[in-house]
Amino acid sequence: MENEVKTSPVITPEQMLEHWQGHRSLTRRTIEAFPEDKLFTHTIGGMRPFSEMVIEMIKMAAPGAKGIATGEWGEWGTFEADGLSTTPKTKEELLELWDWSTDQINHWWAKIPAGRLQEKDVAFGQWEGLTWWHLFYFIDNEIHHRGQGYVYLRSLDIEPPFFWER
Amino acid sequence: MENEVKTSPVITPEQMLEHWQGHRSLTRRTIEAFPEDKLFTHTIGGMRPFSEMVIEMIKMAAPGAKGIATGEWGEWGTFEADGLSTTPKTKEELLELWDWSTDQINHWWAKIPAGRLQEKDVAFGQWEGLTWWHLFYFIDNEIHHRGQGYVYLRSLDIEPPFFWER
Repeated sequence: MENEVKTSPVITPEQMLEHWQGHRSLTRRTIEAFPEDKLFTHTIGGMRPFSEMVIEMIKMAAPGAKGIATGEWGEWGTFEADGLSTTPKTKEELLELWDWSTDQINHWWAKIPAGRLQEKDVAFGQWEGLTWWHLFYFIDNEIHHRGQGYVYLRSLDIEPPFFWER
Repeated sequence: MENEVKTSPVITPEQMLEHWQGHRSLTRRTIEAFPEDKLFTHTIGGMRPFSEMVIEMIKMAAPGAKGIATGEWGEWGTFEADGLSTTPKTKEELLELWDWSTDQINHWWAKIPAGRLQEKDVAFGQWEGLTWWHLFYFIDNEIHHRGQGYVYLRSLDIEPPFFWER
């Protein structure tokens, strides 16, 4: 029985992609909820503006999906985005990079070899672990910082999107 | 190839439990980082104090694990905790209930039948979905609100625990 439980699926790769993109859809709506200036300037307690948290998510998203799929991680924080600015300065540029990331994740996800998520790899040449752990880190880090964005919005008297809508 | 990917494991049940409890360990240290009074009173933007967010997590944790394991969910928000107060009024009482939940999760996790996480169920008689979705919701909701607790701590000039330490 114990062994049966251990080897039965928790979540399929297809469900995992849908789950990730569902969270990313919610984060996109959270970005949209910010007034343009507050997105890049509003902070609490010396923390980063929400735009910088979002750029961190973007640095993990497409490069991370590519790393998991191919083992090619590149250097943390650096990537190319088909001509888009990787240092967005407006909400529109940030959302363009977000949407590019969405497509990239779908592209690389389809190329993840069977069994790959149970393999060890060194993410971005720095963090060693099983690739599922890296994947969960990307998603959890997004949820964590988006939750912080919700506090920023509330402190600006703006209602965030519903957490359960993906 | 596509079919191979779809049926290969993302994460095993054993890894999933460790992942959940790792997050819960981090949340416990976040609770501990709050001064006693601020835990129950500090708010930003009309949001709940962190203690109330933690009680919400506790309402999902043990009762949710039991629901996934047995199909018996009980009524949302109501549960018994072996004589502990389920409406904690001090940090110590909150942490006692947290630690009770940790044990309960381990207890019920071992009883989850093979294949159960891919079954549909109506969580707490209210929310219909596959049980993996309910499980991820419990964890994601904790990450979301803990991230908000981090902003509360920063606004009190207190350094939160490192996000990557579980």
